[in-house]
Parts: sequence; structure tokens; C-alpha cells
Amino acid sequence: MSVRAGIVVTGTEVLTGRVTDRNGPWVSEQLLDLGVDVAHITICGDRPDDLSAQLRFLAEQRVDLIVTTGGLGPTADDLTVATVAAFTGRDLHLDVGLEARIADIIRRWQQRSQVTSDPESTRAGVRKQSMVPAGAQPIPPTGTAPGIAIPAGFGAAGVADGVAPPAILVLPGPPRELQLMWPAALDTDAVVEALAGRSEFRQETIRAYGLSEAELAASLRAAELSVDGFADLEITTCLRGGEVEMVTRFPLGATHAYDALAAVIADNHGRQVFSTDGSTIDDLLAAALTDRRIATAESCTGGMIAARLTDRPGSSAYVMGGVVSYSNAAKSAVLDVPDTLIATHGAVSEQVAAAMAEGAARHLAADVAVSTTGVAGPGGGTELKPVGMVCFGVAVAGRPTVTRTRRFPGDRATVRALATTAALHLIADVLGDDTRT
Amino acid sequence: MSVRAGIVVTGTEVLTGRVTDRNGPWVSEQLLDLGVDVAHITICGDRPDDLSAQLRFLAEQRVDLIVTTGGLGPTADDLTVATVAAFTGRDLHLDVGLEARIADIIRRWQQRSQVTSDPESTRAGVRKQSMVPAGAQPIPPTGTAPGIAIPAGFGAAGVADGVAPPAILVLPGPPRELQLMWPAALDTDAVVEALAGRSEFRQETIRAYGLSEAELAASLRAAELSVDGFADLEITTCLRGGEVEMVTRFPLGATHAYDALAAVIADNHGRQVFSTDGSTIDDLLAAALTDRRIATAESCTGGMIAARLTDRPGSSAYVMGGVVSYSNAAKSAVLDVPDTLIATHGAVSEQVAAAMAEGAARHLAADVAVSTTGVAGPGGGTELKPVGMVCFGVAVAGRPTVTRTRRFPGDRATVRALATTAALHLIADVLGDDTRT
Repeated sequence: MSVRAGIVVTGTEVLTGRVTDRNGPWVSEQLLDLGVDVAHITICGDRPDDLSAQLRFLAEQRVDLIVTTGGLGPTADDLTVATVAAFTGRDLHLDVGLEARIADIIRRWQQRSQVTSDPESTRAGVRKQSMVPAGAQPIPPTGTAPGIAIPAGFGAAGVADGVAPPAILVLPGPPRELQLMWPAALDTDAVVEALAGRSEFRQETIRAYGLSEAELAASLRAAELSVDGFADLEITTCLRGGEVEMVTRFPLGATHAYDALAAVIADNHGRQVFSTDGSTIDDLLAAALTDRRIATAESCTGGMIAARLTDRPGSSAYVMGGVVSYSNAAKSAVLDVPDTLIATHGAVSEQVAAAMAEGAARHLAADVAVSTTGVAGPGGGTELKPVGMVCFGVAVAGRPTVTRTRRFPGDRATVRALATTAALHLIADVLGDDTRT
Repeated sequence: MSVRAGIVVTGTEVLTGRVTDRNGPWVSEQLLDLGVDVAHITICGDRPDDLSAQLRFLAEQRVDLIVTTGGLGPTADDLTVATVAAFTGRDLHLDVGLEARIADIIRRWQQRSQVTSDPESTRAGVRKQSMVPAGAQPIPPTGTAPGIAIPAGFGAAGVADGVAPPAILVLPGPPRELQLMWPAALDTDAVVEALAGRSEFRQETIRAYGLSEAELAASLRAAELSVDGFADLEITTCLRGGEVEMVTRFPLGATHAYDALAAVIADNHGRQVFSTDGSTIDDLLAAALTDRRIATAESCTGGMIAARLTDRPGSSAYVMGGVVSYSNAAKSAVLDVPDTLIATHGAVSEQVAAAMAEGAARHLAADVAVSTTGVAGPGGGTELKPVGMVCFGVAVAGRPTVTRTRRFPGDRATVRALATTAALHLIADVLGDDTRT
């Protein structure tokens, strides 16, 4: 049997769209990895009535576990603990040990950051953060706020007309604090009980580049007829950054059906599939760059390829650096692209892309270099070189430089993002060919 | 009186955390701008029961308008229209005009992208996308899927034990399609009726850099006592990327209270406040760079500053380019940072930061240049130069180069993001001083 969960994200800044929530997706992924079926994520502002309504909704949906994030701070608009306590009919009591621990954390933090604040309001804040609902288990703070795990069912106070609350795990809002607290949260009695008896699920991901969702949908329709046990597979496909991702979730007993489906996809789209084990193009490229030294020469992507490559810890082992040659002057001055080449073919051309990549490799002592030059828009497009057109070059030591031209749809941000992903795939393809030949 | 709305985001890829939802926040911001009070955002997978449950929840919460996003595609897992029709007790009927229009869009798209697909399955998909609930108004597609606006109340079919459904606006999932459709969606009778009679709200934003949330909280506590009408102000504060943002929402009648609050903030934190009209540091920097030419020299930020500067349309007018000098060799070869300087002070030093900025300005013919060199982590930290330490340089033609050293908390991605924002503020500060003196 499947264990169902709901996630409640609190915070007016998230509800109003000013801050992108990272906790809902993160907790959802963790729960899915544990074989839990996440049914609902709800987002509410810092208002107790709206939070209560969402808790009641999830309880009525008979989820086994509710995870809340946020609203655990010392200030008046942090209402989660009091609201959850009221919802579950539990009184709040002061946990003196917790109070001492939080006071100590705050003291050390104030010393380190040389902040002084009114002792009375600090004490009031610490006391507020040390209130625990009766029968609940506090989880040691990873920032200043403790988490709280509350077992299923009402406390002594009860609630007359209420639906019985499921187990509730109350976690802090700062993503880093929440993530650090997660292992201890899973160990609490309330969560262990809620997750007991769940059946095991597997989740597998296939990623492809250069494949349309429509083509994939056609293969899935065919597989529905040919694959025995297809109905046990929960398949979702999505397109992001030009890549198609197909995620399949299934009970362990349906592994044969998944394997048969994966074989159909490999047969039909083997050329486009680049990952069947969850690895990303960034992972594959990092592996392909072992013992190599890469440089970038970016015009329309403006540093996004370099930023993406250096996003990985340890990338300094193979990233030499890059040049953002936004102006033509920069292309000639820093990358030695001949002015005449730009004059003859235009800055957006495969000839210039090749010269940029070769110049970057030379100047940055790299044996692989990638370049982009294109029209990101919204202005600057012409009939021959419309908005969205991007030329790429990949120079690899000892081989002829490879160039490509692509045209991407969408606005400036989309064109830049699609061009960045396309560049990573082009490097991986060229280095892959290198290995094969 | 305030009009309340709820937003339902559909899509298993969003619920499971694989794709970051952009529609919920965007629709929320639009509704807030219209003076609508967004009470709940809910996220569900592609399952009709979960979607029905969320629609019922929002109806029970007495929202005046529900906006749904996603689930309008031609394939079997796109269930929104059928589920909303069932929830509102409305039969689906084929809109023949819409069918012809969508078929035409698909035909032109297939010609352009040279995709061929099975005509029968294409026809079935088009027919599915042309089904409209009785009494609802279709909204012309901006991609292939039409939107749908359904007035409040049940259709002829009704639902026996149901709560009366509010107006429901059904929008497509791709953010660009949704955003393009928004103006037409607001013009539908169902939405106009739902939003009629709302009271006018204003929302104002104050942004500060170098201010802690605790200091701001102290000012707000003081303002609560001194500002007449403070209770009418709905204030949320949040910290992001090192900036503190304070957003206040209030009925027009409380404008005097907001003005008094803004004066308190200006008095207490005038040095840290950099924006009171909603403009971002990117906006301010773009204005400060008019008639200037900027270059970047990035080590630990690896291209993120250049990518951020070139994110703006029209930035080619003042961004010359940049260098990502990830290796020491790149620092010397491309930026002329003397090897001896690196040997004497280390790559992470204000001396090297200054030389990097000056080298970038020289090589890229810029009159402003910014540099970063630091330890992003997780490895590479020492006692003297710990993870999170970043040195900055800003070179402005005709002035001594300014350098700073900061230490940022958090993981690699956080350090890089905080350093990028810090660099933008440092440039703006230095250029601001330039103007003042």
C-alpha cells in the first residue's frame, strides 16, 4: 500500500510570487525517493486561518503525513507552531532545555556577527521558538529554529468536529536549515510510524536531446499496446531547456514492464537519448572533460556557459576560463578574431564562431573550447539572421573545428538558456565522437 | 471589500519537484497588482481526483476566482478541462470554430518544423483541445491550447452535494503561452464579473543592502507604536541574495500610514536602502552605466556577473565583455596579472582583484571594470582564506581602483550568488560616489 503525503509551504513572500519556493520541490523529491506518494503541495501566506484550512484539507484527503515548511522564526508573523498546535488540539508548553540551547546559539551568533539587540526582545523570541505542542518531539535546530514532529491523532485538548490529524512534521523555512534537519526529522517516532508499511517504488529517468514531446508521445502510445504491465507505470514527460525528460514511477513488481518500455525508447530514439541513469548533461560533460582543459568564448550567452561549467565543485580541475566577447572589439582584441572575418561574414556566423573557439583555446591554454555568437533579441534580428539564431563552434586540439547553426524559439532569456544547453550537448557530442573514432 | 482568489497549478513534473513552477508566482503577482487577495496556491499532479479535491477546497474557502494552469495539451494525461467541467456540472461540447483554428495552427507548425505525425491522432488531439464546457467562454490559443473562462455557479447538470463553484479561469501550462493569454483572459465576462467591486490596494517595495532582517524588525516594532494606522499595513520582509526586501500592501485609505512608515525606514536605514520604487539593483546599475562601457574579470563567480549584466535587452550598448579567469594561467595570460603578484599575495587577494579589474578594463576597452576572486568551496579554503571569502575590485577610468573583501556564508551556489549581487552593489556604489564627488 502506498503512503500518501501533503506538503504545506508557508510564507507570504512565496504566496505572492516574490520568492521562488525551493522547499516544496525538495521535500517532494525526498519523499518520492522514500516511496511516498506526494498528493498535494499547498502554499499559504502568514495567516493562521489559511494555514488551518490547508491542514484540514490535507487531513480530509487522508494523507498519512503533512510536512510544513516555514513560519518558525522568533517574530510575530511566524505562526506555524501555534497554528499546528491548535489544529491538533495540543497545548503548547515551554521546553526549558530547548530554550537554553537556542539562547546559546543566538548568543554565539551575536558574538560572531557583532550584532547587539535588545535582551528582552531576544529572550521573548527564544521563548517563542522553544514552545512545543504536548506529545510532540522537538528536532534540534540547524539554524536557530527547532523542527517539531507531531504524531497522528489529537492531543488531550482534542477538537470537537475535526477530522483526525495525520502525523505532522514542522520544518524551518531556510532551505539549508531544512535540508540539514531532514535526516533527524526522518528518525522521529511520528515520521517513522507514518511511513511504516509503505510499499517500495522505483523511479527511473530517461533524458533525450533533439527529440520532440510529440515523437515521444507516439512511442508511448505504441508501447501501451506492446508492453505487458504498461498500466502499472506512472509516466510523466516534460520538456525543459530543449531536453525531453521521461520519468517513470512504478512498484517493484512492475520492473519487467519498465525494462520493456526502456527498450522501446532505446530502439526508437537511441540516437537522441543521452542518459538512462538520471545523470544530467552537466554530469556527462564533467566526466568527458577529465584530463582535458576547457575554455569558453561567449557572445550571446554572455557568460552562462562558463557559469554553468563552474557551478560544479571541482570544476577548476578542467575549466581554464573564458571570454565574454560581447562587443566586436572584444572579439578581435581578446580572441584574435580577424576584423575582416567579422566584416565579411558578420559577427553571427559559423566562421566567426570557429575563430572565437580557436582563439579561446589558444589564449587560455585549453585543448577544448566552445563558442557562441547569435541574436538573443528582442532587437538586432534581420531576415537572414533572425532573433533566436545562434552559431556555435567547438575546437578540440588536433581536430578540425566543428561549427553548427541553430534557431531557437522564445524570448531573450529562453534563447540564451536554450543556447547554453545546446552548447553543452555539442561539446559532449564532439568529445564523444572523439572517443569513438 | 477584498476579492479573494486561489491558484491551482497542475502537472506531475511540478508536484514531484522536477520542474520549478513559474506560473503560480506569476499569476499571483498579476492578481495582487489588480488588488485581488491571493489566499492559496495549490499544486497537484495529473490526477483528476486530486485536482477535483483542490477545486472543492478552494470553493469551500469561498474564493471568488480560481485560476488553473496546465493540463490543456492533446494527450491523455491532460485532464484539466474535463475535470473542471465535471466539478462545475457542465457538459463538454465541441466548438467547431475552435477546432478549425487549432487544426490550422498545428498544420502551420508541422510545416514549419517539418514534423509529420499520424493524421488520425493529430485530429483526435485537436478535437480534445476544442471541447468547451457549456456556458464557458474559450480564450484564443497563444500556443495550441485555448484557455477557458467559466462563470461562477453550476451548469445545467449541477452537482447535488457540491459547494457552488466560483468563476474558474483555465490557462495553459507553458509560461509564455499563459502570459500572452493573460490580457484576453482578464477581458472574459466570467473574470470581469468575479473581479467587479474589488477595493483598491497599493503595494510598495523598499529594498536595502547590508541591512539585517533583525535590524529591520526592530524598526518595524518601533513603527508599530509611532505610526498612526500601522495595523492597516500588511508588511512582509524577506532576505534574498543578501538584499532585504520589504513589501507593504495596503488599502488606498492607509496611504498616510505607509508614507509615515517609509519615513521611519528612511531615517533609520537610509544608507542601506537603495530602492523605494520597486527598481532592482540591475535596473539602477543599467541606468548608472549609460554612456559607460563595462567589462568583467571573474574568478569564483565564473561568468555569473557577465551573464547577469547581459540578461537585460539592450545591454550590448554598455557591456563590452568579460574574462572568466578561472586558472592562474588565465589571470596572467589574458588579464596581464603579474605572476609575482599572485605568488606574493595569492590569487585570492585585493591586489590580484585590482589587477584583474584593471586588466579587463584595458583589454576590453572599458572605462568601468569589476573583478571577483575568492573561495567558493566546498574545497580550497584555508585558515587565512576560508571558504566564502571573496575579494572584489572596481576599476573606473581616471580614479584609483577600489577593492573590498567579504566573507559569505553558505554552500558553493550561495557564495557565488551572494558574490554576484555584492559585485553589482559595489559597482553601483562606486559609480554613485563618482557622480556625487
